[in-house]
Amino acid sequence: MPAYSHYQPLALANVPHWDFTTDVAIIGFGATGACAAIEARKAGAAVMLFERSSGSGGASALSGGEIYIGGGTDAQIAAGFTDTVEDFTAYLKLAGGPCVDEAKCELYGREALAHYQWLKDQGVPYRGNYLPGKVIEPTDDSTLIWSGSEAATPFRLTARPAPRGHVIQHVGWGGGRPLVDILEARARDAGAEIHVDARAVALITDGDRVAGVVMRIDNRDRFVRATRGVVLATGGFVFNEAMRRKYCPESFRVNSPIGDKDDGIGIELGQSVGGDAIHMDQFFTTCPWTIPADQAHGVFVNVAGQRFINEDCYHGRVSRCAVDQPGGKVYLLLDSAHFSQPLDLAGITIAGTGNTWEEVEGELDMPAGTLSATMAFYNRHAHQGRDPLFDKQAPMLVPLDQAPFVALECNFETSYFSFFTLGGLKTGTAGEVLNRGGVPIPGLFAAGRCTSGLPAWGHGYSSGMSLADCTFFGRQAGRAVAQLKN
Amino acid sequence: MPAYSHYQPLALANVPHWDFTTDVAIIGFGATGACAAIEARKAGAAVMLFERSSGSGGASALSGGEIYIGGGTDAQIAAGFTDTVEDFTAYLKLAGGPCVDEAKCELYGREALAHYQWLKDQGVPYRGNYLPGKVIEPTDDSTLIWSGSEAATPFRLTARPAPRGHVIQHVGWGGGRPLVDILEARARDAGAEIHVDARAVALITDGDRVAGVVMRIDNRDRFVRATRGVVLATGGFVFNEAMRRKYCPESFRVNSPIGDKDDGIGIELGQSVGGDAIHMDQFFTTCPWTIPADQAHGVFVNVAGQRFINEDCYHGRVSRCAVDQPGGKVYLLLDSAHFSQPLDLAGITIAGTGNTWEEVEGELDMPAGTLSATMAFYNRHAHQGRDPLFDKQAPMLVPLDQAPFVALECNFETSYFSFFTLGGLKTGTAGEVLNRGGVPIPGLFAAGRCTSGLPAWGHGYSSGMSLADCTFFGRQAGRAVAQLKN
Repeated sequence: MPAYSHYQPLALANVPHWDFTTDVAIIGFGATGACAAIEARKAGAAVMLFERSSGSGGASALSGGEIYIGGGTDAQIAAGFTDTVEDFTAYLKLAGGPCVDEAKCELYGREALAHYQWLKDQGVPYRGNYLPGKVIEPTDDSTLIWSGSEAATPFRLTARPAPRGHVIQHVGWGGGRPLVDILEARARDAGAEIHVDARAVALITDGDRVAGVVMRIDNRDRFVRATRGVVLATGGFVFNEAMRRKYCPESFRVNSPIGDKDDGIGIELGQSVGGDAIHMDQFFTTCPWTIPADQAHGVFVNVAGQRFINEDCYHGRVSRCAVDQPGGKVYLLLDSAHFSQPLDLAGITIAGTGNTWEEVEGELDMPAGTLSATMAFYNRHAHQGRDPLFDKQAPMLVPLDQAPFVALECNFETSYFSFFTLGGLKTGTAGEVLNRGGVPIPGLFAAGRCTSGLPAWGHGYSSGMSLADCTFFGRQAGRAVAQLKN
Repeated sequence: MPAYSHYQPLALANVPHWDFTTDVAIIGFGATGACAAIEARKAGAAVMLFERSSGSGGASALSGGEIYIGGGTDAQIAAGFTDTVEDFTAYLKLAGGPCVDEAKCELYGREALAHYQWLKDQGVPYRGNYLPGKVIEPTDDSTLIWSGSEAATPFRLTARPAPRGHVIQHVGWGGGRPLVDILEARARDAGAEIHVDARAVALITDGDRVAGVVMRIDNRDRFVRATRGVVLATGGFVFNEAMRRKYCPESFRVNSPIGDKDDGIGIELGQSVGGDAIHMDQFFTTCPWTIPADQAHGVFVNVAGQRFINEDCYHGRVSRCAVDQPGGKVYLLLDSAHFSQPLDLAGITIAGTGNTWEEVEGELDMPAGTLSATMAFYNRHAHQGRDPLFDKQAPMLVPLDQAPFVALECNFETSYFSFFTLGGLKTGTAGEVLNRGGVPIPGLFAAGRCTSGLPAWGHGYSSGMSLADCTFFGRQAGRAVAQLKN
C-alpha cells in the first residue's frame, strides 16, 4: 500500500479510484467548517464535511460561544453604547499589532453587523442585554460583555471603547457547544454530507489545482474527489509538540493547551501544495485571574517587584505580557477589600501575606524597597485617580491599602495558563490559501485557526475574536469555493 | 520565455538545455559558500560557486571576522582561562534558548577546536593574545575577546565563563572582509569555478531530488546541472520586507539592517522543494552602546524608569531585551565617572542631565519616584557589591553616584539598532535540508543565515556565533554534498 503523506500531495493521475465525489470537501467540523458548509450548500454546491473526531465541535465547542462583533449592534445600542465601523475596525487593527491583516480587519469591520444577523438567522439566540463589569463569560445568559482591552490604554486612545463580546444565550459557561450544535443542525438541514472519524492524510492535486483529498476512514485510505475545491478548517497546532518546538517554542512556558486534536494538519496540508504559513510564533494565553471580578482591581508585579502592564487590559493581554516576564511567575497583589479566593482550577496559590506591603515583600523574599516601593507609588497616585506609569483606568484603578494584603502567585508551570496557537496559513479575504508569492492556490481555501486571521497577535487577543474569524471567514471560504467551476 | 520561480522548482524534464554541468552548485559566496566550496573540492567534487553580487563577501564581509570558539583554544589557555567542551556546549545551548538545536550545539562543541585549526590551516591569522575588557571588536589586532554573556547571569551559573570570541589578526574593525578574502583565495586555489553577478531563480528537481538550479546571468536564464547537489548559502532575509512582515514583524521596531542583498532567496528556494523554515520570527539586534567601554557600567531603564536586564550581558542581548520594552526607547544612565560621548554613528542623544537622579528624572518627564527610586535602590546595593534584582556582576556593577548625571536615549527608530534575521531552513548537522517531516531532501544542503543554526535565538545571540555557524556548517554541507553519488 502506498503511504500518503501530508507533506506531499498525491497527483490526481495516481489516485487508484474514487471513493467519494463531491463539489466541495471541507476538513474539520468546528464552527469554521460548519459555516463553510452552510454557505457552500446555499450557493448550490454539493458538500462533504469530514471530521476527525466522532462528532462536531473542535476547539469552537470548548469556547464560551462568544463572538467579537461591533459597529452598532442591537445589544450595543440598547445598552447605550455608540460604536461605529471606524472605531470597531481601528480596534481590530490595533489588536492585530505587528501581525495585522488590514484587509481582513476592514472587511470584517464593514460586514460584522450583517454577520451577526446571519448568525441569528441560523437560529443562534441572543438575549440582547448587556452585562456590566469584567467577566470572562457570563454565568447567566447575557449577551454583551467587555471582552477585550477596548477601555484600556493604548486601545482607548485610538478607538472609542465599546463592549463587543456577543455571547450566545446560554446559562453559564460553555456556550461554544450549543453554538456549534446550532451550526451543525443548519449544515445538516442544508444537505451537507457529514463523515466523522475521518482523518485527512494528503491533498490530491491536478497540476497546480487542489482536486481532492485522501481521508483515512475505518483504517482505510478513501479518495475524495472535490471538483470545486477543498476547505481546510482543522484548527491550530496546539497539540503538535514538534510543530510548537519548531515554530512557537515560547508556548512551552505555559501548560494547558486548549483544543480538540488540533495537530496542525491543515497547516501542513496547505504547505504541502505551496501554501504560506505566517506568524507561526504567535499564541494566545490566559490565566483566568479575573475570577472573581474583584481581583481585576489588583496589581501585577514580576519577580523584581515591578509592574509591567495596565491591569485593566483584557486578561489574555495581561497574561501574555506576564508570560514575557522573567522568573517563571508573576504575582497578583490585592488588599482585603479586593480579595476573594481564586477558583481551585486556576492553580493560583497565596505566596505571601502581610499587614503592610513591606511584610508581603519580605514573605516573597524580595529585597526591601522593591514591591513595597511599587505599591507605595501606585497607591499614592491611585488616590489621585492616576496611574502615571501604565495609565490604568477607573474603575479598576483603586488604592490597595486595606490591610491585610496578599500576593497571589500565578506560576506559568503550575497555574492554569491555557493557550492555543494563532499562526497559520496566509489566506485572502475570500479564504483562498495564498502561496509565498501571494498568489491563490487554485481549489484550496482555509479559515479559522489553521490560518492567521483576525486574532493574529497574542498580545492583542480579545475574547470572541477567534470565533468571529472562524465563523465569518469560514462563510467566506464556503461561498468562494462553491463559486468555482467544476 | 517561461518564467521560472523560486516558489516552484523546475522539473528536470522541462530543462531546455544545460549551460553548465558540475557536481556541486553552491549559491552564495560569503564565508558559508567559500567554506562549502573548499571542502567539496577537497572531497573531489567539481564545484561551481554562484554569487549574486560582483564579488565575494555577503554579510560575512561586513562583520568583524570574529568566530565563537571554545573548549580550550591556544589563546584561551595562554590567557589563563579554563574552558571545556562541556562548558562551551552548555553555553551554546543556553544561547539557543527555546530555539536551540541541541545536536548542532553538541557537534560544534566537540569539533570547534579542530575547526579553529582548520581556519588557521586555510591561512586565517590569529595573533593569539587576549584583550581584556568589554569591547565590540578589537581596535588593535588582538585575538581573544569576551563576545557574549558568558560571565553574566544566568549563563555563568550553568557554564563556567570564558571568553570565546576569536578575531582574525587585523588592525581595527572589519575583520570580516579579510577573512572572506582568505577563504575566497583557498576556494579558488582548490579549483572552485566562480560565477559572479549570478542570481538564483529556481531549483531544478529530478523527481524528489534536487538536481540543479536556474541562474540568472547577463539577463538570461542559465541552466546548471548539479549532479551531486546544491548548497544554499544565501544569507537571511533582512532585506526582504515582505518576508519580514509575514514572519518577523517585530524586526520593524528597529531600523538598520545588516547584510548584502539578503533577500531570503535561499529560504524560499528550500521551501519550494518542501524544506522546513523554522524560528522565522527570530532576529539579532544591537545598539553599540558599549562604545566606549566606560558606558558598560551604566544602567538601562525603560520609559517607566524600570531596569529590565543585568547590563553586563552581551550588548546584543541587552539591546534585544531593550527592544521588547514599551515606548519605543530606553535610557542608558551614567554618572560623570562613567560617561563619554557616544560615537556619532550610534545616533544616541542626551535626553536628560542633572546633579541628582531626581533632576534627570524630571528632565525626562518621568513621575517623581520612578527613575530616582530605581537608581537609589541600585546604588545602595552596588555599594555592597550586589544587584539583588538582576544579579549584574563586578566589574560592571558600580555605584553611579558621581554628579552630574546623564540619561542617554537609545531610540529604536533613530538610534543605530542594527539587525539581521536568524530564522531559516531546518537542517541536520551535515547541512542537509530537512522537510517538515524531518526527512532530508535529496541533493539539497544549506548553511549560514538561510538556516536556523547555532545563533537561533535573538535574546541569546553572542558575537561570533553566526560566523561560527557559517564556517563550520558550511564546511559540513560541502563535505556532505561532495560525498553523494553522481
